Amino acid sequence: MRLFSYQDSNKNKRVGLLRAKDSGEFIDLSATDASLPNTLLDIISSTHAMSHIAALANNPAAVIKPIQGVKFIPLVDRPGKIVCLGLNYADHAAEGGHSRPEYPAFFMRGPSSLAAHQQPLIRPKVSDKFDYEAELAFVVGKTARHLTTANALEYVAGYSAFNDGSLRDYQRKSSQWTIGKNFDATGGFGPWLVTPDELPPAADGLRIQSRLNGQIMQDANTKNFLWGIVETLVLITECMTLEPGDVVITGTPAGVGYARKPPVFMKPGDTIEIDIEGVGVLSNPIADEA
Amino acid sequence: MRLFSYQDSNKNKRVGLLRAKDSGEFIDLSATDASLPNTLLDIISSTHAMSHIAALANNPAAVIKPIQGVKFIPLVDRPGKIVCLGLNYADHAAEGGHSRPEYPAFFMRGPSSLAAHQQPLIRPKVSDKFDYEAELAFVVGKTARHLTTANALEYVAGYSAFNDGSLRDYQRKSSQWTIGKNFDATGGFGPWLVTPDELPPAADGLRIQSRLNGQIMQDANTKNFLWGIVETLVLITECMTLEPGDVVITGTPAGVGYARKPPVFMKPGDTIEIDIEGVGVLSNPIADEA
Repeated sequence: MRLFSYQDSNKNKRVGLLRAKDSGEFIDLSATDASLPNTLLDIISSTHAMSHIAALANNPAAVIKPIQGVKFIPLVDRPGKIVCLGLNYADHAAEGGHSRPEYPAFFMRGPSSLAAHQQPLIRPKVSDKFDYEAELAFVVGKTARHLTTANALEYVAGYSAFNDGSLRDYQRKSSQWTIGKNFDATGGFGPWLVTPDELPPAADGLRIQSRLNGQIMQDANTKNFLWGIVETLVLITECMTLEPGDVVITGTPAGVGYARKPPVFMKPGDTIEIDIEGVGVLSNPIADEA
Repeated sequence: MRLFSYQDSNKNKRVGLLRAKDSGEFIDLSATDASLPNTLLDIISSTHAMSHIAALANNPAAVIKPIQGVKFIPLVDRPGKIVCLGLNYADHAAEGGHSRPEYPAFFMRGPSSLAAHQQPLIRPKVSDKFDYEAELAFVVGKTARHLTTANALEYVAGYSAFNDGSLRDYQRKSSQWTIGKNFDATGGFGPWLVTPDELPPAADGLRIQSRLNGQIMQDANTKNFLWGIVETLVLITECMTLEPGDVVITGTPAGVGYARKPPVFMKPGDTIEIDIEGVGVLSNPIADEA
């Protein structure tokens, strides 16, 4: 299943279920069954709702609408935590002058840094060093602590695409990257939450690209993760509880803008796409802060 | 005013208003006026509620209860963001071998890392390098972006004490400190939200201490901040929107456990107190992870 979060014309939060991958249509879940929760977080937190929705997909009474014109909102708009891995591809560590890491460089983003599919990513007033980072994201479905390699994948509600947009000068103003990763509306997230049954186990072996104005900037494969989804979940939950709706983003491969010669940064009028095989294409225009 | 969050015997969230500082009594706000919101976040987000509560303090019909036996919960239990400053006192930067920083080292904690006043701070199974950090915290009252030195303080709902509990080995497993700062129930927060009118402007000139089993470990003054509350708010909101209920913790002075010779770490049976002049004493026992 491919689920997404959107805002209807009355500014209410809704959840849609994409029909066949390229149909251009979705099932309006609330309109089809008013008993379903209105937010993706409430849906993924409920085993009952998830199985009920799977059954709706082929229901002839489903209320079907066109994707065209939908106003996407971030899949989970207020996650308790957004845990990010830095340097999870050896080639990206190398391009930044880092040695191959022995432990992931974890940091966090806050909800105010999120932007939905098709919503502009904002280049702030104070910096023009606005860089893209193609990343596979996953959303946690159940409360998780001390997961093991045997059970970790049971806690993944689904996968999505993320653009870990970074202001490189702020990222390097101190030893800690967090501030450069937390400007408003710099982290693209979406468009779909793709349930694990649609993908290879642990989302392994998926091509991941970023394209700036159509030009391929990053082109890698999740098989080259230093820490795969299972290892990542084991490492994080050794330390903390992951809660339903928490988001983990898994790091970016080589090809980011700052490491290019000459450097490439995103500017107003650009379009940046993150394309992950089987997961979807996240597309965002770039705009200057008002 | 000194407000606090607690859980009543029916496990409902409630807000209390401390009576005179050492009275040992509080006003049960919901019992006194059922129209008041039940969470501190909803109260501080409402100018009306704040002024109404101030009037209640001297109302002879107020429902008064003893503090003794109250089950505290974190002041704000699910902040959108908890933004932390590292190295905001020159002496602590020096004891860690850091030069005097030119920009704060920002990082974030997640809500799962919080612990209320009197609740145990948890030493995890995987590390015994559990260190204390006395910090002044403040809670944001209004949506804030691009604040100026002239208006920044208007956005502070109040101040509190924080213990930025850190697992030092995990903090140093990579260049990013975040994972060592995000173990479950390691960040003490409370007991009171003290409104700014009770303190000097910008909470300047307050003595701040940590005491481990009664012994003073850190003893400093907020006048020695490298970045005061105003400068901190200006720097953060240059980058991101702070929202009501967001928490900022302002860094710790010298005297932490890992920098001592020999190092001192917290262990089960210990009690750690953070005492900030005019703000209150946050006290937590230490317990091992179950």
